[in-house]
Amino acid sequence: MTSTAHDEARRILDGAPFIRDLGLRLESLGEGTCTTVLDLEERHLQQDGFVHAGVQATIADHTAGTAGATLIPAGRAVLSIEFKINLLRPARGERLVCRAKVLRAGKSVSVVESEVHAVEDGRERLVSKATVTLAIVPRPGKTKEGSA
Amino acid sequence: MTSTAHDEARRILDGAPFIRDLGLRLESLGEGTCTTVLDLEERHLQQDGFVHAGVQATIADHTAGTAGATLIPAGRAVLSIEFKINLLRPARGERLVCRAKVLRAGKSVSVVESEVHAVEDGRERLVSKATVTLAIVPRPGKTKEGSA
Amino acid sequence: MTSTAHDEARRILDGAPFIRDLGLRLESLGEGTCTTVLDLEERHLQQDGFVHAGVQATIADHTAGTAGATLIPAGRAVLSIEFKINLLRPARGERLVCRAKVLRAGKSVSVVESEVHAVEDGRERLVSKATVTLAIVPRPGKTKEGSA
Amino acid sequence: MTSTAHDEARRILDGAPFIRDLGLRLESLGEGTCTTVLDLEERHLQQDGFVHAGVQATIADHTAGTAGATLIPAGRAVLSIEFKINLLRPARGERLVCRAKVLRAGKSVSVVESEVHAVEDGRERLVSKATVTLAIVPRPGKTKEGSA
Repeated sequence: MTSTAHDEARRILDGAPFIRDLGLRLESLGEGTCTTVLDLEERHLQQDGFVHAGVQATIADHTAGTAGATLIPAGRAVLSIEFKINLLRPARGERLVCRAKVLRAGKSVSVVESEVHAVEDGRERLVSKATVTLAIVPRPGKTKEGSA
Repeated sequence: MTSTAHDEARRILDGAPFIRDLGLRLESLGEGTCTTVLDLEERHLQQDGFVHAGVQATIADHTAGTAGATLIPAGRAVLSIEFKINLLRPARGERLVCRAKVLRAGKSVSVVESEVHAVEDGRERLVSKATVTLAIVPRPGKTKEGSA
Repeated sequence: MTSTAHDEARRILDGAPFIRDLGLRLESLGEGTCTTVLDLEERHLQQDGFVHAGVQATIADHTAGTAGATLIPAGRAVLSIEFKINLLRPARGERLVCRAKVLRAGKSVSVVESEVHAVEDGRERLVSKATVTLAIVPRPGKTKEGSA
Repeated sequence: MTSTAHDEARRILDGAPFIRDLGLRLESLGEGTCTTVLDLEERHLQQDGFVHAGVQATIADHTAGTAGATLIPAGRAVLSIEFKINLLRPARGERLVCRAKVLRAGKSVSVVESEVHAVEDGRERLVSKATVTLAIVPRPGKTKEGSA
């Protein structure tokens, strides 16, 4: 991971208002990997007291993008073009831990997998898994905006 | 749409803390359809000023669930088991409008499509499209909790 | 649709051994659309007498690629980077009809939807629906091979 | 794996005409796992000489269903309700090896992942990865047909 890639990964995590608002924080960053943690609050839930699928999707997508950003050249950025998430079990507990890992790093397209675990009474269980397809695009603001 | 189905659809929308916190509001509800609106704020954005994919995924999933809930029997509830979303264009503007429509209503599984449109300067553009698979399960709290 | 795009769409359909072997034939080709037909035989079925999901996926993907190819510039080709298919009902009958339509045509990525219908006793029913993401790449053999 | 589950897994593999026609053969079967092999022929290819996405999707789906069937009770069967596949690299070589593994085995829904590898000159490379959602339904012919 170059320091440029690291910069872009940090920019994604620190610079996204929705992610700050949600409360997601970075746990660790590696070569094609990223781990994030979300301390659960009442506002993250759906109508039956479980973590909303949208919360799980948000952190799965964002952690995947950050993992993907660790493997791109300077001046480039990642953009989610699609993702799919399977919600395997009702999610509840003290916090969510999301681990993302690049499955395939390409020149213009990368594919990343994210696993979301719920931690309840210190026990961790896989609650959802996502596959995220990223486009590698010119970094916005550095060059003229590119559309995929 | 029975009044029971309507009740369940309203319960989903009004009773989910994450949806209230996001600011999503109901526009209309029909037989197997639902339309919601989100007035965009800075906190909904990602690092480059576009609406975060997680926001789009959340409203696509939730509006789909509400549409699906209009077609289920009394005492049942819907649970997202998986969804896939394609992010077609960078999303920005004053608000998002999400229209969900049931593609296939089954006894135990339903499939719903959601289209998310961004409204900018009064002009509406399709920004993402999702396919959501719902399990039809016993309504939590009414009977013992069922796990799919 | 330029005649070049039409050429590429025909090349895809006529030039793919697996598609010829399957028996898929072109019904019509338009601007961003394609319709194909498969006359069903016993060899297309799974263990319970329904059309195999793999047959439906193959024609959904291929018809989508052909629809996408009608909107690309000369010298370019399409390549499926991912797709998702929902199998809505058991499929059986005399033939399958697949209609694909481009949802979003981009410079480097296009998104196409395919609907697969089964025709049984003259009655047509939607049996599956797919969303296909295509990369727009240099046409193989015309320039050096590009990897996405 | 009970011998009943093993029976159902074998029935799926041996009893599906499309799978026999394709040439897919069983390599091994475990508790929630299945490995299959396809010796590649010219008829499995697309227009540019690579293995058709439909072939990869077919074996990913079918191997996933077989893996899922190893974990179900007697009298039940699996039915794919949806799957998503990412095509990571152009696939070519002597054969494909597909390894499926159950991610979550539920009472009514299971989720299975399949990895497809291409073997070229004895070297194995991951070419696609799929996530398959299965419904667990009454076994057709044993009880009245159930529709999900």
